[in-house]
Amino acid sequence: MTGEDTSKDAAAVSEKMDLKIQSDGKEKDEPQDGAARKGPKSIKKEEKFILKTPKGTRDQGPMQMALREHVFAIVKECFTRHGAEQIDTPVFELKQTLTGKYGEDSKLIYDLADQGGEILSLRYDLTVPFARYLAMNKIANIKRFHIGKVYRRDNPAMTRGRYREFYQCDFDIAGQYDPMLPDMECIQIACEIIKKLDIGEFVIKVNHREILNGMFNKCGVPNEKFKEICSALDKLDKSPWEEVKKEMCEVKGLAEETADKIEKFVKFNGGVELVDKFLGEDLGKNPNAKKGLEDLKLLFEYAEIYGIAQYLSFDLSLARGLDYYTGVIYEAILRQNPASPQDEGESVGSIAAGGRYDGLVGVFDAKNKSTPCVGISIGVERIFTILENRQPNDAHSGLPIRSVATEVYVCSAQKGLAKERMKICAELWANGFKVEQSFKLNPKLLVQLQYCEDKRIPFAIIIGESEIEQGIVKLKTVVTREEVEVNRKDLVATLRQKVARS
Amino acid sequence: MTGEDTSKDAAAVSEKMDLKIQSDGKEKDEPQDGAARKGPKSIKKEEKFILKTPKGTRDQGPMQMALREHVFAIVKECFTRHGAEQIDTPVFELKQTLTGKYGEDSKLIYDLADQGGEILSLRYDLTVPFARYLAMNKIANIKRFHIGKVYRRDNPAMTRGRYREFYQCDFDIAGQYDPMLPDMECIQIACEIIKKLDIGEFVIKVNHREILNGMFNKCGVPNEKFKEICSALDKLDKSPWEEVKKEMCEVKGLAEETADKIEKFVKFNGGVELVDKFLGEDLGKNPNAKKGLEDLKLLFEYAEIYGIAQYLSFDLSLARGLDYYTGVIYEAILRQNPASPQDEGESVGSIAAGGRYDGLVGVFDAKNKSTPCVGISIGVERIFTILENRQPNDAHSGLPIRSVATEVYVCSAQKGLAKERMKICAELWANGFKVEQSFKLNPKLLVQLQYCEDKRIPFAIIIGESEIEQGIVKLKTVVTREEVEVNRKDLVATLRQKVARS
Repeated sequence: MTGEDTSKDAAAVSEKMDLKIQSDGKEKDEPQDGAARKGPKSIKKEEKFILKTPKGTRDQGPMQMALREHVFAIVKECFTRHGAEQIDTPVFELKQTLTGKYGEDSKLIYDLADQGGEILSLRYDLTVPFARYLAMNKIANIKRFHIGKVYRRDNPAMTRGRYREFYQCDFDIAGQYDPMLPDMECIQIACEIIKKLDIGEFVIKVNHREILNGMFNKCGVPNEKFKEICSALDKLDKSPWEEVKKEMCEVKGLAEETADKIEKFVKFNGGVELVDKFLGEDLGKNPNAKKGLEDLKLLFEYAEIYGIAQYLSFDLSLARGLDYYTGVIYEAILRQNPASPQDEGESVGSIAAGGRYDGLVGVFDAKNKSTPCVGISIGVERIFTILENRQPNDAHSGLPIRSVATEVYVCSAQKGLAKERMKICAELWANGFKVEQSFKLNPKLLVQLQYCEDKRIPFAIIIGESEIEQGIVKLKTVVTREEVEVNRKDLVATLRQKVARS
Repeated sequence: MTGEDTSKDAAAVSEKMDLKIQSDGKEKDEPQDGAARKGPKSIKKEEKFILKTPKGTRDQGPMQMALREHVFAIVKECFTRHGAEQIDTPVFELKQTLTGKYGEDSKLIYDLADQGGEILSLRYDLTVPFARYLAMNKIANIKRFHIGKVYRRDNPAMTRGRYREFYQCDFDIAGQYDPMLPDMECIQIACEIIKKLDIGEFVIKVNHREILNGMFNKCGVPNEKFKEICSALDKLDKSPWEEVKKEMCEVKGLAEETADKIEKFVKFNGGVELVDKFLGEDLGKNPNAKKGLEDLKLLFEYAEIYGIAQYLSFDLSLARGLDYYTGVIYEAILRQNPASPQDEGESVGSIAAGGRYDGLVGVFDAKNKSTPCVGISIGVERIFTILENRQPNDAHSGLPIRSVATEVYVCSAQKGLAKERMKICAELWANGFKVEQSFKLNPKLLVQLQYCEDKRIPFAIIIGESEIEQGIVKLKTVVTREEVEVNRKDLVATLRQKVARS
């Protein structure tokens, strides 16, 4: 990225101030023991100051922000093209609002200190606050999106886009509707966004909690263990089956032969023909599995109409960790990481995921009134990571190549012309142009023009005393270095044409 | 606002669930004692659940978000028109990064719980994280903006736009430049934004910390009391002089005659002629005050060139609470609140504020290397409050009147046509139209058309069996109820024209 964004490599240490700049990547939670280090003889002698962002977080510099804005614009355009309304909720919630919603992952929730008053936690996702919002405002129907930061005290893996503070972009549909119509829309949106981002081939794994329940039942998993076995199965995308089986049997007390039966199922993945196969077999006779399989059959039918069936893969190993899902679940996976060819063939993890959660709003409702919901969350951090890695290598990627939008830079070629520059700037700003100038009274012309090149500003206006006398300015096209003289009173009109053409 | 945004009035209480919905406005920090209330006989019997957002925070519903996006767009457009780059920083910082930066207000900082690891606090403003960012990345020059939420454990006054979680929109210029050039740009930006927002007449009070220091010196305030007296003086916009004097004398131990001398100064406000007056008087002989007065003289000169001098008011009572200011300070005040005519003549508080802080980055730098900075922060929450109050009364305000951007709604007039609707939606989405449809298989036509009216969707496509047979659709303009038949293959072209004209 730009030369400014060097936080990760900054490791300068000053003995004098006893000040450390620690790389984000180093993942040291505690200040190191400073006994061997001596500060100057002052009252601050023993004070250590560490210049860093908190573990698992990072600043976003100008070029990174330009890239983020590019991705957010694509995501938002798609959400609004599908008629979504936007909402926002506070970054923290009452702790009890989050309690009991995330299963094993609840330990990753950030709590606020008790400073007298309410007990609060940072939000862990945007789904639970959405359900709280629906129940609190008694909203039965809404199609909303929400872009915001969420917080997880997870072990960060920053090079792979896993942070403790990260953005989610969620689209959800709440309301009592007919099967698979809203579910299909969520998957359609995921497809549209991933295609538009142009980050490579992808597949959308789909499964259904009811199929998993039917499968667990068939395999002999006791009812009360469904959720924890589901949560163990969810790790299959990161760990080999042997490890998952070990967790199922040794940690969660499942019989080995039960785990072996599960293994036979989770090997399967395919298209609608696999749904049909299971519908015709023993699994299809289990009422839960039957319901789930019929949902998926319909989903494939609708996907055919939308022309996206080829992206769907019914995958019995897909489990999704969160407790609250009740129906269709899905996860979009990049087939390979275009930024790292060495990863070829290996999946780089989920870039969008979601599913149906019909019970969550009811938990917050005074009368347990349920509001069926289904949603998709776009994993923008991983997308940023992919695009950041690719950006420098691909000038024709359509990605932003500059961090300012400035169209014109107003330069002076001689001393004492700052006020003349200001007059031009004022006129151009008032006419809607994006304009900058130096904040020095008498900057060198070369320094001013260098700034234009560095920031890729397309046009420079240059004034000297003779131009002022003649009532003209020089208008320079920075890239070509072509210069024309423009009458001062024609400047706005001339620039308008030039900027429109550039 | 919309019917959905009723959180403030929601007060339904269910005995059954022992569940309370508490209004944000009630400001009760603790769950009330529920001894007199009995839940059902279950293990959850004693559990109380309060459905609310944390004290001092609120959800933003769709119409509120539409308004926010409108304001953010204006602010962002202005920042980028002046060549600013965008950055972002984590919502929390190491606690020590914030320590000692906010004077008396430090007690309002939210701390995170110690869950093992680093000691963290939520950011209190965007300025200190910016200074930390500059020092950590060794950036000597930047013109950046940052839009983000900040957190203060203050006493909320939600009807006046004072929250515990609120947005700030900051523009700052860092770098060693000539006097008043960057400072002027910040004030110019504040003027442009407030004018563009069209929220009424305003004045920008300006003062200078060096003038205050000179004034305190002249009045006989001991050096070591400058900061706390400055902080007391800052309350003059909310409290009468008598109270401020009481704090100066009784709490901060100032001699009464010293306070009386201060009172004589802080009564003054005016234009550049007031600056000249003080330059020619005793105050102008104090070296600090002289430096400050000369800065302001130059500022007024530049403001004249930019055509905004009439908005500036040199005001010796302006102090700004925060410790870190070192030079020019300013605060934009609405002259009256157009939303509440009863407030006429009374100022509704600051809607933008900032100043110069040349020492803050040095605090974070290993070698105390200072980076001069000046900035402006737009108080968007107060602006939202003003616009929210005005919105329902003014259809021609230029403010958003709907929360979705949908251009076309695809309706079916008979049963069994869901898949036909899907085909049309798929084609229109692929062509970039903003399109919605019902998620019911067989929705009633009236219900579909009602939705278009409720959401102010301009066009509806209606299909029935006969239309499908003939290869046409009906295209309805919702407001006029005018209907035309369009050949299915001409639909995209026809719609493109209609949408462009609407």
